[in-house]
Amino acid sequence: MVAKQFFIGINWGSSNLRAYLLDEQGTLCDSTSSPKGVTKLDYDSMTDTFLEVVNNWPYTDSVYLSGMIGSPMGWTDIPYKACPVGLNELMNALSPVEIGGRCAVIVPGVRCSTAYGDPEIMRGEELEIIGMLAVAPQLAKSGKIAALPGTHSKWVQLSEGRIVEFFTSMGSEVFDRLAEKGLLNSVMTGEAHVSEPFTKGVRRGASGATGLGRLLFGVRAQAIDGRLSGDDAASYARGLLIGAEIADANSIYSITSYQGSIPLVGNAPLCKLYAAALELFDVSSHILDADKIAGAGYTALHRQALVCRQ
Amino acid sequence: MVAKQFFIGINWGSSNLRAYLLDEQGTLCDSTSSPKGVTKLDYDSMTDTFLEVVNNWPYTDSVYLSGMIGSPMGWTDIPYKACPVGLNELMNALSPVEIGGRCAVIVPGVRCSTAYGDPEIMRGEELEIIGMLAVAPQLAKSGKIAALPGTHSKWVQLSEGRIVEFFTSMGSEVFDRLAEKGLLNSVMTGEAHVSEPFTKGVRRGASGATGLGRLLFGVRAQAIDGRLSGDDAASYARGLLIGAEIADANSIYSITSYQGSIPLVGNAPLCKLYAAALELFDVSSHILDADKIAGAGYTALHRQALVCRQ
Repeated sequence: MVAKQFFIGINWGSSNLRAYLLDEQGTLCDSTSSPKGVTKLDYDSMTDTFLEVVNNWPYTDSVYLSGMIGSPMGWTDIPYKACPVGLNELMNALSPVEIGGRCAVIVPGVRCSTAYGDPEIMRGEELEIIGMLAVAPQLAKSGKIAALPGTHSKWVQLSEGRIVEFFTSMGSEVFDRLAEKGLLNSVMTGEAHVSEPFTKGVRRGASGATGLGRLLFGVRAQAIDGRLSGDDAASYARGLLIGAEIADANSIYSITSYQGSIPLVGNAPLCKLYAAALELFDVSSHILDADKIAGAGYTALHRQALVCRQ
Repeated sequence: MVAKQFFIGINWGSSNLRAYLLDEQGTLCDSTSSPKGVTKLDYDSMTDTFLEVVNNWPYTDSVYLSGMIGSPMGWTDIPYKACPVGLNELMNALSPVEIGGRCAVIVPGVRCSTAYGDPEIMRGEELEIIGMLAVAPQLAKSGKIAALPGTHSKWVQLSEGRIVEFFTSMGSEVFDRLAEKGLLNSVMTGEAHVSEPFTKGVRRGASGATGLGRLLFGVRAQAIDGRLSGDDAASYARGLLIGAEIADANSIYSITSYQGSIPLVGNAPLCKLYAAALELFDVSSHILDADKIAGAGYTALHRQALVCRQ
């Protein structure tokens, strides 16, 4: 009997860390998470945190690190790979590091230049996209779209199994910042959910008749006017921001004429809001489990690495 | 010889207080300011703050209070007056109050319903608009526009000496919130100023090709890409937000075909950015001194009150 080979994938971002124990078949054997994001840690605490995670899972082979750990804020700055980027391009750019005496490899981020001539960057999402491609081979055809809702959402154009182009919207961070302090803090007292105010917000945010600066003040004015409760105010504001983002995704990637269903990977409650918003424009989408996708991403990398070793 | 009659005007907002000692001729004899905004004070501290201000200036007649002091967060909730609102409408809605044994009157805020069916509200700016009308009688004709750049900027349509309609943009608050925490905090290290990156931001924000959620992430991506320094990043981000606001002002009040110069009242460095941005679209504007305008507003109210007493 041959002993099973285990390996570790760590998605180490700015504000959180999520680690996965996987076997070569891609089975998720264990996972753990912590608020120890790289922006909160110096080198010593990064080393301690890393060793704590990997020593908790003995008898493991490789360790893959993705996310902001590969940025100037993290362990070391790994250059972004320029699009088009698929599994092979990432594999060939893995950076070996040694942290506290233990070897690991860092997955590089990805950059592209958009049709507007703007630079775009991602760190961490590329691993999830590799995971999506692994679980949904139909995404590996030409002209596919995927979305990763989050604090900084990514909308990604895929072709032949590679990331071709993408753009980022920081609408969710705008929501978070406005909810925690300032004029909207006292009127947005609840959680956003799919509701009539959410739908109204999505439609208004997407209409583009006026911009977010004016529309967001309307959250306050309508609350003062008694037209929005605390829960409704949060739903309406989220709707405005998601609606505006969908309008951007449509002007860039024509999502309203997209044939097929757009996979959504991210925080589950946020993905539900995106799915409901997309449905208003007759755009099909489906939510994929974020842990499963991350596991599939690390597994795809690990299998490819094993092939290369042979 | 008749002794001069002095009176006091206090602009008491959420986060600051600014008080003016004036005479009946409208001469600004003294002024003072403090960070004791109403959101930081309970009733007792509000009373103490009020008495400290007014007792500092003995031999004064009336005291006028404007701003958030007349809201549920302040001393008492004074209902908004519905547009159209001019000097007479405000005069007839002054609310007498007694604070710590001293009499004062609170100037009501103003509300309107926009062409989009949205409610809009202001508290404090109505006093400044009365001041603008007093120093610039040409504003009292029909079809005039004024702007009050600030954390929550107001764009106001005036006719025959009254506020007819207005809208608010919270673009500056979005800037403040994003500058103090989160993804853009580390890349926007300087102050915004009129510069090539500011101009570029204004044009892109106003173009409406894509929304602020995407454009603001571009501040980060361009900084990481080495295309924007810390000062430039702040200028570019401010430009995006002011540009988007100007596009809204244009779609609502057609400012690019406005005949005449738009008066700007507010924080002077911010007004300079707005004036430079408007110039890019060949819209004339001129900056008015905010203290002078506030003094003129309180003086106009006080003179009208004296007429009513006779």
